[in-house]
Amino acid sequence: MATTSSNVTELTINTIRTLAMDGVEKANSGHPGTPMALAPVAYELWANTLNYDPSSPLWPNRDRYILSCGHASMLIYSLLHLAGVKKVDANGKIESGLSVTLDDLKSFRQWHSRTPGHPEYEHTTGVETTTGPLGQGVANSVGFAIAERWLAARYNRPGFKLFDYNVYAQCSDGDLMEGISQEAASIAGHLKLSNLCWIYDDNNITIEGRTNLAFSENVPERFRALGWHVVEIEDANDLNALADAYQSFLDNVESPTLIVVHSIIGYGAPKKANTSAAHGEPLGADEIRATKAAYGWPDEAFLVPKEATKHFAETLGARGRAAREAWEALFAKYKQSHPQQASEIETLERRELPAGWDAPVTEFPADPKGLATRISGGKALNMYAERIPWMLGGSADLAPSTKTLLTFDGAGTFTADTYAGRNFHFGIREHGMAAAVNGMTLSGLRAYGATFFVFSDYLRPSMRLASIMNIPSLFVFTHDSIGVGEDGPTHQPVEHLAAARAIPGLIVLRPGDGNEAIYAYRAALKQKHRPTAMILTRQNMPTLDRTKYASAEGVERGGYTLIDAANGKPQVILIATGSELSLACDAYEQLTKEGVAARVVSMPSMELFEMQDASYREQVLPASVTARVAVEAGIRQPWDKYLGFGGGFIGMSSFGASAPAQTVYEKFGITTAGVVAEAKRVLGK
Amino acid sequence: MATTSSNVTELTINTIRTLAMDGVEKANSGHPGTPMALAPVAYELWANTLNYDPSSPLWPNRDRYILSCGHASMLIYSLLHLAGVKKVDANGKIESGLSVTLDDLKSFRQWHSRTPGHPEYEHTTGVETTTGPLGQGVANSVGFAIAERWLAARYNRPGFKLFDYNVYAQCSDGDLMEGISQEAASIAGHLKLSNLCWIYDDNNITIEGRTNLAFSENVPERFRALGWHVVEIEDANDLNALADAYQSFLDNVESPTLIVVHSIIGYGAPKKANTSAAHGEPLGADEIRATKAAYGWPDEAFLVPKEATKHFAETLGARGRAAREAWEALFAKYKQSHPQQASEIETLERRELPAGWDAPVTEFPADPKGLATRISGGKALNMYAERIPWMLGGSADLAPSTKTLLTFDGAGTFTADTYAGRNFHFGIREHGMAAAVNGMTLSGLRAYGATFFVFSDYLRPSMRLASIMNIPSLFVFTHDSIGVGEDGPTHQPVEHLAAARAIPGLIVLRPGDGNEAIYAYRAALKQKHRPTAMILTRQNMPTLDRTKYASAEGVERGGYTLIDAANGKPQVILIATGSELSLACDAYEQLTKEGVAARVVSMPSMELFEMQDASYREQVLPASVTARVAVEAGIRQPWDKYLGFGGGFIGMSSFGASAPAQTVYEKFGITTAGVVAEAKRVLGK
Repeated sequence: MATTSSNVTELTINTIRTLAMDGVEKANSGHPGTPMALAPVAYELWANTLNYDPSSPLWPNRDRYILSCGHASMLIYSLLHLAGVKKVDANGKIESGLSVTLDDLKSFRQWHSRTPGHPEYEHTTGVETTTGPLGQGVANSVGFAIAERWLAARYNRPGFKLFDYNVYAQCSDGDLMEGISQEAASIAGHLKLSNLCWIYDDNNITIEGRTNLAFSENVPERFRALGWHVVEIEDANDLNALADAYQSFLDNVESPTLIVVHSIIGYGAPKKANTSAAHGEPLGADEIRATKAAYGWPDEAFLVPKEATKHFAETLGARGRAAREAWEALFAKYKQSHPQQASEIETLERRELPAGWDAPVTEFPADPKGLATRISGGKALNMYAERIPWMLGGSADLAPSTKTLLTFDGAGTFTADTYAGRNFHFGIREHGMAAAVNGMTLSGLRAYGATFFVFSDYLRPSMRLASIMNIPSLFVFTHDSIGVGEDGPTHQPVEHLAAARAIPGLIVLRPGDGNEAIYAYRAALKQKHRPTAMILTRQNMPTLDRTKYASAEGVERGGYTLIDAANGKPQVILIATGSELSLACDAYEQLTKEGVAARVVSMPSMELFEMQDASYREQVLPASVTARVAVEAGIRQPWDKYLGFGGGFIGMSSFGASAPAQTVYEKFGITTAGVVAEAKRVLGK
Repeated sequence: MATTSSNVTELTINTIRTLAMDGVEKANSGHPGTPMALAPVAYELWANTLNYDPSSPLWPNRDRYILSCGHASMLIYSLLHLAGVKKVDANGKIESGLSVTLDDLKSFRQWHSRTPGHPEYEHTTGVETTTGPLGQGVANSVGFAIAERWLAARYNRPGFKLFDYNVYAQCSDGDLMEGISQEAASIAGHLKLSNLCWIYDDNNITIEGRTNLAFSENVPERFRALGWHVVEIEDANDLNALADAYQSFLDNVESPTLIVVHSIIGYGAPKKANTSAAHGEPLGADEIRATKAAYGWPDEAFLVPKEATKHFAETLGARGRAAREAWEALFAKYKQSHPQQASEIETLERRELPAGWDAPVTEFPADPKGLATRISGGKALNMYAERIPWMLGGSADLAPSTKTLLTFDGAGTFTADTYAGRNFHFGIREHGMAAAVNGMTLSGLRAYGATFFVFSDYLRPSMRLASIMNIPSLFVFTHDSIGVGEDGPTHQPVEHLAAARAIPGLIVLRPGDGNEAIYAYRAALKQKHRPTAMILTRQNMPTLDRTKYASAEGVERGGYTLIDAANGKPQVILIATGSELSLACDAYEQLTKEGVAARVVSMPSMELFEMQDASYREQVLPASVTARVAVEAGIRQPWDKYLGFGGGFIGMSSFGASAPAQTVYEKFGITTAGVVAEAKRVLGK
């Protein structure tokens, strides 16, 4: 094995390759072929290009490296290990140990190891975003690049180039076949995000065989049509060509860059190179031995030559440390000259909000006609966003309908010419929007994306990932039920509340009037570790009289008693959310008139309610009162837990229909009379 | 108003335009601008190109016209009315009346009218697929085009060109921004579907304003990169250019065609043309009056000049009738010379299956080690597909993992060179695959698409539409739980069973062993009007001993008693699905040993179970036995209805984790011991 400096490069690259082979072999599971192919590509980027300090992995101006083809996770784990990236704890404190130790590499894909099958954000320091579901990483990268442009536009000052980092995403055929990546690439091209570089591993192999079984498009031409700069590299092992390509990206200030790298999956493996067999299973002991022999590598597992770590320390490490130290010195000066801006940066980096953001806002007066929660919600969004300078977002071409436009002075629009704007036109690209929102959120911004609730299905994979990552992405969904009316069943959510509540960790909030919308936004913004789906109506609904009913502050507890029986001893409890809350109130009045003691519980968020202690929950929904009726213009599935065998439900069990909203409600029996009748039924009357 | 034949063309076009304006105005809701812009585009296609017989709208060799921009529904409704398309009943019988009457146009978007907000398949004869959610129609169109190629390859004979129809999809900016359309276009280009023509309305307007707010790519170049033939038309009113473009499509036999039509939204409206205001709201009485004046049209609502209907009858009607009659004559001869093939065509057109398809198949012998249901399911799929010549499908680049490859002799692969094959390589494009499967199913084929269950999120909008359309698309999802193991939380479904069961109409089947997999496929194939999600494991599970337990035929009733308490009077009922069924069986044995009378209910499909009569359901789950434990490696949400307040649950409440499957099961407490303990807990022991 060569150890002279003249071939330390090759030695380092082969260390990455052999660690990947060994890690997968020991786990008896995983994907060796892509790390073997991409080792030189990643090496050249990390050793000679990336602006990243392993000793301070969360430094704000670091370049971001995203492994969108997350199945090749051993590539990033090996890099993190060899580069000596330090572990950072949950509070952002840098620890003395490594993020990924040699033992971690040896326990690849094992319970609670720091090297899970696919890279997981926060679980492993240095992983900027959780990847694996194809297309997500590249789509996140657009959000990361947007965030850098926005931070630079807002905070850089003459002499203070605080933000000028780049975002690199390593991706595969699969990433580029997924529709989400087309949406993301189209957004990036439109916004001329020249700080964004996708490195595409064109290896001609997929799980089913040769890529050309299913993929014959001209990728470079497609990306040129999207406004990207494209560079092609014939051989993934050509470090000079790679260096030139990265330089070409750095030199280009007009557009994002796609680097197409032709590689050989399982490079060096005598039998499995360039075959599907190298993709998703261990090479096997014999093939590993033969491959190591081909590399001129000792027949030893998990061998990490000191020269390799030293080499990374002398390249990436030294360069990154110097850059980070220079940045910190610059930031110290910035703090002197721009204390307010510096404080904002520090606050957002901690994922906190400015002091006073949650001071009381103007509440909506009681009004029987009321207004749609998309409107009251839009006002609440604006009130809070005006207090939170880094709260920003937009809609998938539905802002006039979702009412999510920020309309206060100076909000502005984020365009290729004005990166300081806070309103985004994501285009009719829900999935790309949601993934971008995740990338923006991961960059410290409080980002939101809005569309119709029925189209939450289009972005569900990204919403799930926000929850897996424990990040507070905000998804605003309006037109939340059959109340959509004339647009008909294709546009009327029915199962979407159930489906959203099914995602572990996601907070679903469906406020019942304008004031609940205010507190719902407040509850969402308080989240540091959970994403929120904010569910709002298209149609008007009454603004409840809070002098008569309980305060809307109860929203923050998820569920609360809105109106109680006169003696506090209800025979029946009506539980409702959103646009059906006023139906429950009307039913209460009717039942009271008829001598039935009822209680109305407003339940805007089952998730927040479940977080309350048992005594509070018992107070709101006493176990002794089993006569309960839930009212929600969705399916019953999420409600059974509160209804038991004896409860009743007024809602939907089929798709909706096209007609004016009022008609649709009546035809499907979601009416005050329906609630009253169901209450009597469960009471046996 | 002109009525001479020299300008009957213009008159007909303006009839389409004014009906759209009037329909939206009367409904006080809808999208007038696009029908006004596209009237000449659709006119030229329908009057002079489309091979379609209004008097026999389901004729198998008809050209298909899909309005992918479904919000422009008044366009197709006006066309169906003017063309005199007949109504067809649920059994395919042609009725005497029109599919869309003038009264229907006047009750646009009203309860139970035949003119809902977005076009709905089966609801309105002549609507080939339900559209509205953007991108779906164009993606369906790829499935339609595939089906034609397959039918032609299988059934055409020298002298018998039975199938040679074309598929036209009218689409908008929104359709082309959605990722699903990129996936679909990439598949279509790869498969060289020269029978497919997308007509793209490039009007530079979206809901938020000018398209260039968010969309600046070069669409023609993008499509050329995907292998499409592209034709551009400068003016949507240029009928000669349109005729040339359609001819260019018909002449091209190498690739699909994109016709880019530059149009003016709200064409002719003095104030609103070329603005977002013409998109999604009524023009208003004044603007309608002014627009009609600009057209030289009387100020009269819903005016249908006889010349317009006569003109369509003389063009489309005469041409279509002749073609259909010629085809029927040809088919009569074909029946003589190729009776078997003719019978197959007739059977599949009725959405029926060949006689004997459901004869018993070889069952799997009891085996404690057993096999994964992806494997037993793959065998079942093959056994049935071998009996059903038009059962075909594929995977989103996961066939070696999903085990959905058809491996019997002659199954073949569908490629650009061999359209008779039955295995599809859809590429890493789940959403495009599912929409194509819907298009294939709508064409009479029994089509399936397969991927990992976690990626059901990527195709959910298409699965929902299959259910809205009441069509028997088959979605096969393997790797169905934390049993995925090492791939970790990004690849482990947790909430997906709840989310799938939430979709109204969708049948979710999760068989509990190899023999349940056989009956699960049989149950799925029996469906004529409901789609199925087939949920299968990655990991092995025992094949139960059916001499000891009830027959797996019980699957077809959704839920059945697998093992009962010795005296038929269980104290506790264990309910389980899929890979957790054997855990319930083991727990049963343990409980029996401890003197607890238990019953195991296998519940592979809640939806099929709910369709059984009350007495059967009571027999399986007696109301008197409230001590129940459900076991499923998903979330509890769908189970509460069977558990009430007193039941117990062994399953997931968080995302999974990366580790070997067995470890993950143990760590999350989904074990025999866990079930036994939970059973005792609910029994108060």
